[in-house]
Amino acid sequence: MKKDLENIVYLIKEKRYTEVRKTIINFNSVHIGELIEELIEELDVSEAILVFRMLPKNLAAEVFNYISSESQEKIISSITDKELEYIIEEIYFDDMIDLLEEMPAHVVKKILKYSNVEERKLINEFLNYPDYSAGSLMTIEYVDLKKDMTVEEALRHIKDTGLNKETIYTCYVTGKRRKLDGIISLRKLILSDYDIKIKDIMKKDIVHVNTNEDQEEVARVFRKYDLISLPVVDLENRLTGIITIDDVVDVIDQENTEDFQRMAAISPSEEEYLNTGVWTLAKNRLVWLIILMVSATFTGHIIKKFEDVLQSVVILTAFIPMLMDTGGNAGSQSATLVIRSIALGEIKVKDTLKVIWKELRVSLIVGISLSFINFLRIYFIEKVSLYISVTVCITLLFTVVLAKIVGAVLPIIAKKLKLDPAIMASPLITTIVDAASLMVYFSIARAILHI
Amino acid sequence: MKKDLENIVYLIKEKRYTEVRKTIINFNSVHIGELIEELIEELDVSEAILVFRMLPKNLAAEVFNYISSESQEKIISSITDKELEYIIEEIYFDDMIDLLEEMPAHVVKKILKYSNVEERKLINEFLNYPDYSAGSLMTIEYVDLKKDMTVEEALRHIKDTGLNKETIYTCYVTGKRRKLDGIISLRKLILSDYDIKIKDIMKKDIVHVNTNEDQEEVARVFRKYDLISLPVVDLENRLTGIITIDDVVDVIDQENTEDFQRMAAISPSEEEYLNTGVWTLAKNRLVWLIILMVSATFTGHIIKKFEDVLQSVVILTAFIPMLMDTGGNAGSQSATLVIRSIALGEIKVKDTLKVIWKELRVSLIVGISLSFINFLRIYFIEKVSLYISVTVCITLLFTVVLAKIVGAVLPIIAKKLKLDPAIMASPLITTIVDAASLMVYFSIARAILHI
Repeated sequence: MKKDLENIVYLIKEKRYTEVRKTIINFNSVHIGELIEELIEELDVSEAILVFRMLPKNLAAEVFNYISSESQEKIISSITDKELEYIIEEIYFDDMIDLLEEMPAHVVKKILKYSNVEERKLINEFLNYPDYSAGSLMTIEYVDLKKDMTVEEALRHIKDTGLNKETIYTCYVTGKRRKLDGIISLRKLILSDYDIKIKDIMKKDIVHVNTNEDQEEVARVFRKYDLISLPVVDLENRLTGIITIDDVVDVIDQENTEDFQRMAAISPSEEEYLNTGVWTLAKNRLVWLIILMVSATFTGHIIKKFEDVLQSVVILTAFIPMLMDTGGNAGSQSATLVIRSIALGEIKVKDTLKVIWKELRVSLIVGISLSFINFLRIYFIEKVSLYISVTVCITLLFTVVLAKIVGAVLPIIAKKLKLDPAIMASPLITTIVDAASLMVYFSIARAILHI
Repeated sequence: MKKDLENIVYLIKEKRYTEVRKTIINFNSVHIGELIEELIEELDVSEAILVFRMLPKNLAAEVFNYISSESQEKIISSITDKELEYIIEEIYFDDMIDLLEEMPAHVVKKILKYSNVEERKLINEFLNYPDYSAGSLMTIEYVDLKKDMTVEEALRHIKDTGLNKETIYTCYVTGKRRKLDGIISLRKLILSDYDIKIKDIMKKDIVHVNTNEDQEEVARVFRKYDLISLPVVDLENRLTGIITIDDVVDVIDQENTEDFQRMAAISPSEEEYLNTGVWTLAKNRLVWLIILMVSATFTGHIIKKFEDVLQSVVILTAFIPMLMDTGGNAGSQSATLVIRSIALGEIKVKDTLKVIWKELRVSLIVGISLSFINFLRIYFIEKVSLYISVTVCITLLFTVVLAKIVGAVLPIIAKKLKLDPAIMASPLITTIVDAASLMVYFSIARAILHI
């Protein structure tokens, strides 16, 4: 691929345009997109536009989706109005909406010049769907059939109108006032006899979502039913659009990235790491770090309160890092498993007791094992006194059990409160568990060591 | 849906089978699967089999994929050989391989009875592809066209053979010795004139993967090119199978779950949380907890070494939790962003210097801000002495910078060493940063406080 690119850049520099056209016409649209990026970077936007002009209309529109928004902006600003119209006409509606959302105002104006009143109304409606909703993901370009058509008529209809549809592989059968009556796959159409009526072979048990549904739920529906497209209906059950699998894969990635970031105490951002500015990165991290730092001082206060204990047995301090780290890790394990299971729809709020019962048993096994290993190490190898060894190990057991229960329950509570469970991940749990385990540590120490 | 289920269970109990058949025949296969699970749980496997017998052949096979492996095993063990043959015949090859991998030996034997020598050879070949490779994901049921066919011939070929193909929406054009010459979408076929030759409209810039390719890379290719299916070739460039998007969505979920688990120091497991036994859960968590606990004692040793410092200024102990937690959190933020970016292919090993430079600047901004806030708090509000406040704040700045650099670099090093970057996440980084920051803390304290 790298070589092909270099070759074309060379041909363009040499102005051997016929050869260029012959080569790229067979390229995958993603590769042509890469070529355009390369040209803008190495030569000039005008050379990139030259390549654009060589492409057939629908390929040009496809390629346009595979270049970065900076390059899109550069190209839109530099081409003639006529050329812009040529591309815009072919772009799928959902990609157009995405484009309008990304471009600065003057570019948006330039794009919208070619839409009529009707279209502009529709565009506005789509721009108003809440972010991360099914409505914001859907496209209006689907194949619309009627239930009294025959298979032959349906296939002809697809042939006549299919060029502008985002997918023709699932067709939607609508009745009066766009009510969704059924769906039928192109596969079924192709494999059926020509004279059968659509209503006799369409599926009526239709999986669908509402325009306001959250995109995470949309992804869950796609997973559960192994779909490649999904109809979206409004509150009166009228078909408003469809969502296709390629956009859902993006949603899954986005939702996962968001969870990873939340769980690491970062304010979520969709921007790629290398493209994000230093100040933005710092800002996204600072908020939570400050909250957690201030909370951690609470733990400091506990230590101060027990200063006398530490002063008389300084060695107790040496075990604080081990206790804190193990508590944090144990809690973060449970929290992660529960958060992930909630995200995949495997754990629901009604499972709370089951989860607690499971974590209680797991934490006892894990806590007793760790305490035992720890006792062997500090009593026999490090020769710490028996009383101190016992104090450390009891605290360790308590810490692990507490951490695992808190770690498992907090995400479920968050879910119940309609918050994102991912914010209840390790950093927050560590802070809570730290305080509790130190309190127990010093109390046990006082009792056992009679300080 | 819940209500429909109850209604059918009721009809079955009443033995009103004609009504049952009439109702379920219009159901989505996922919903019929749910019904079957319900029946096995509430009544008996024989009632579930009864429902199975009512389904047309291909629907029965489809439904079979949507029930749990325990139920699959129960059903296979209870049905007659003839009925099994009926289902097996219709199951897609990749689902069959998955089934064979899950079932115990006696069930596998029962299934394989119906395959001939040729088939059994193929099955063995597929069972031998490494786990998590492209080979293990693919199916052999694709539409195979020849480049000299006309569009009309191709469409007729699809109509004649398409019923047994997993997808007919992308067709593969193969030449001598199964060499992949091109691909063509059903969309293109439908929208083209009947007498055009396939070779004139097929795509020749074909995105493909090798059978040994890792599934994570497969998912990346699907994402990059917005595919719904992808051809898999062997070392001699012969088409061996195809991968479809529904299996890739599962791969993406699996890979993400694995990353979440690794990052929380859990040995990865594919089992659902609620279905996993307590002992397995404990085992998956213990290994890393032990490793990290033992490493944390290293931090304890540092404290012991500086016991004299702590004994003379006990208040220093009170800031240890805050320093440790903030260091851990700061490091885990960077590690998470870098691990995620590597997983999505946004950061490569060659970007190491760029990442370090970025993290250095971010960590200085974050570290100075945190130190400043901290100074205000402990010097002005908590009235800690100036020297101690300064000691704490310098250590904090150092800790944040170190944590962020270490957190960002370790995952890249892991990638370079062909390890999973996700193991270099917060728990490990916390342990490393803890030790380093305590060392600095006490050294600065000694220098500034002249202890």
